[in-house]
Amino acid sequence: MKFGINLFPTVGPADKPAGEYFDEALRLAELADELGFHHVKTVEHYFHEYGGYSPDPVTFLAAAAARTSRVRLVTGAVLPAFTHPVKLAGKLAMLDNIAKGRLDVGFGRAFLPDEFTAFQVPLDESRARFDEGVEAIRRLWAEEDVRWDGTFHQFGPVTLLPRTWQRPHPRILVATAKTPASAEAAGRNGYGVMLVPSINPREAVQQTLELYRDAAAEVGFKPTEEDVHMSYGAYLAEDGEEAREQGRLANERANRSLASAVSAWRETRSADYPGYEKIVEKAGRGDFGKSVAERKALVGSPEQVRAAIEDIRGWYGDFTISLQVVSGNTTFEEAARTIRLFAEHVLPHYATND
Amino acid sequence: MKFGINLFPTVGPADKPAGEYFDEALRLAELADELGFHHVKTVEHYFHEYGGYSPDPVTFLAAAAARTSRVRLVTGAVLPAFTHPVKLAGKLAMLDNIAKGRLDVGFGRAFLPDEFTAFQVPLDESRARFDEGVEAIRRLWAEEDVRWDGTFHQFGPVTLLPRTWQRPHPRILVATAKTPASAEAAGRNGYGVMLVPSINPREAVQQTLELYRDAAAEVGFKPTEEDVHMSYGAYLAEDGEEAREQGRLANERANRSLASAVSAWRETRSADYPGYEKIVEKAGRGDFGKSVAERKALVGSPEQVRAAIEDIRGWYGDFTISLQVVSGNTTFEEAARTIRLFAEHVLPHYATND
Repeated sequence: MKFGINLFPTVGPADKPAGEYFDEALRLAELADELGFHHVKTVEHYFHEYGGYSPDPVTFLAAAAARTSRVRLVTGAVLPAFTHPVKLAGKLAMLDNIAKGRLDVGFGRAFLPDEFTAFQVPLDESRARFDEGVEAIRRLWAEEDVRWDGTFHQFGPVTLLPRTWQRPHPRILVATAKTPASAEAAGRNGYGVMLVPSINPREAVQQTLELYRDAAAEVGFKPTEEDVHMSYGAYLAEDGEEAREQGRLANERANRSLASAVSAWRETRSADYPGYEKIVEKAGRGDFGKSVAERKALVGSPEQVRAAIEDIRGWYGDFTISLQVVSGNTTFEEAARTIRLFAEHVLPHYATND
Repeated sequence: MKFGINLFPTVGPADKPAGEYFDEALRLAELADELGFHHVKTVEHYFHEYGGYSPDPVTFLAAAAARTSRVRLVTGAVLPAFTHPVKLAGKLAMLDNIAKGRLDVGFGRAFLPDEFTAFQVPLDESRARFDEGVEAIRRLWAEEDVRWDGTFHQFGPVTLLPRTWQRPHPRILVATAKTPASAEAAGRNGYGVMLVPSINPREAVQQTLELYRDAAAEVGFKPTEEDVHMSYGAYLAEDGEEAREQGRLANERANRSLASAVSAWRETRSADYPGYEKIVEKAGRGDFGKSVAERKALVGSPEQVRAAIEDIRGWYGDFTISLQVVSGNTTFEEAARTIRLFAEHVLPHYATND
């Protein structure tokens, strides 16, 4: 098992001005680096409290790279649908060099209708744009004199600068929330996956992982624990009861930000997103206690959290966990406490973590 | 007068791998911060040695912001023609917060045909896309619930997150290489300007500045010395003769990279770029000695450079100079020497520089 930190902002200007958020987020990244965590991850979203402080994860991760020396930087995820492949490949290549090869790139399809509307990208083009974007970017990284004649972009021959530090390219991870076929395709392509256990039953995650690992095996690709990422809301305190109380409050605030961000699904349907209208029904109505009991969130004393991780590991095998430590308007002190307690009491039990 | 450092890469993988370039560039940014320079600036270009290591200046400046505490970060420039305004406004707002208000934003029209071709943007739309992009971004920064119904983009109402640290928005500078009307428009809009003295006669720069200052005065806008930026190739050594010899070599290498980047102008004409085909004739054929004598480059001993600056100041008044210290394949040691000598012998004479 590997353990990293997911800095997914779910606050707005009224709760925490952005200058304060980024100052704290950078300090948490430094703490993660110092205490031996595997990675720092952040997201791409727009306009809403739900991730909206991070419209460009590369910008934050470049700052985090400059402040750290060991921890990996992970996009969780960047969205090719909204950025030209030359632009996205180029800035990720810069980051890979600034970080001296510490970059892993998660790509996502995006799922918030308001974002697609603002960028004037039809939701129904989501999958096609994703597939084209990832493949164009992979080729820009791996090859010279690239000619691209796609549905959405045509260019070349061009040779991307700078060349990536990691050759032929940084690890690629594909985010898949609800679509097992995406995980299967990722396995066939030799990519990693980012799954979302918080909104899927355990059995669904297991089936998706099986599809992924089978597809990988068929092409001779052997995914490591670093090829499977999952994020978990995390709140640790010495006293398990306090952790559950405070974690519940943070979770409720984060849920409200999600509910607001997905509200456009009330009036939206897309063949590329079957069943997403149900997200809006569920958002903001999560049963926190059930979530913790089902190991969909890592909340409690260090011992309780370690027991939860052992359950999860039993279900899914070894993989990489990202601890979401800043849900809702969590204070810096609370997030830092979660990170410190985890580093002190949980990390040492996983010797492969470096 | 204010003095900053322009890190404009003009190298490729064969001369200097990108990891080495960025490591050095960050160390130079730290040195500039430590020695009291006003800013660190970088450019946006693609594919060619001429700037191609910097397809996203925001990525580098975010790393530089995280390593520094006093120096300002300046895009010189970002290119709205190639990036969606929501995307560009968003990442610049992140940078402004990460830098705690140390951001100044230079916008440029771009001028390399190969870049327009790759992004499938017609050169003849350059001015219209620039004007629309800058205004859309300014409104996304300054206002909430922005509705944009432009020629190239339509969106809203949306409220950009994060909000910028500097309110209503960071200083805006408009890059203008050859088009006095752009400087005039900048003055009317309350924006600063970035001029290019290396490719214009002194009288042309003076006329452009006069147009700019008159237009600003007409609308009651009083530009400060920080509203006028110009970059100068800079090479300092204790021994003036050595500086000229080494500076000449660096300049020749940088000229070759420019010549290669502009070669597409041989076959390109655009109403938005009158006379640009002449760039290709001139590129790579600069007379270095004449350039230094005409104060179009700051090369020599600290005393010689100081004398040149006094001449320039006499022609243009007080403004902000960016020293280009990494032309061609300059070593870190040479660039650091230029910065140190300038800080020791020139900066102290300009007390307003902080």
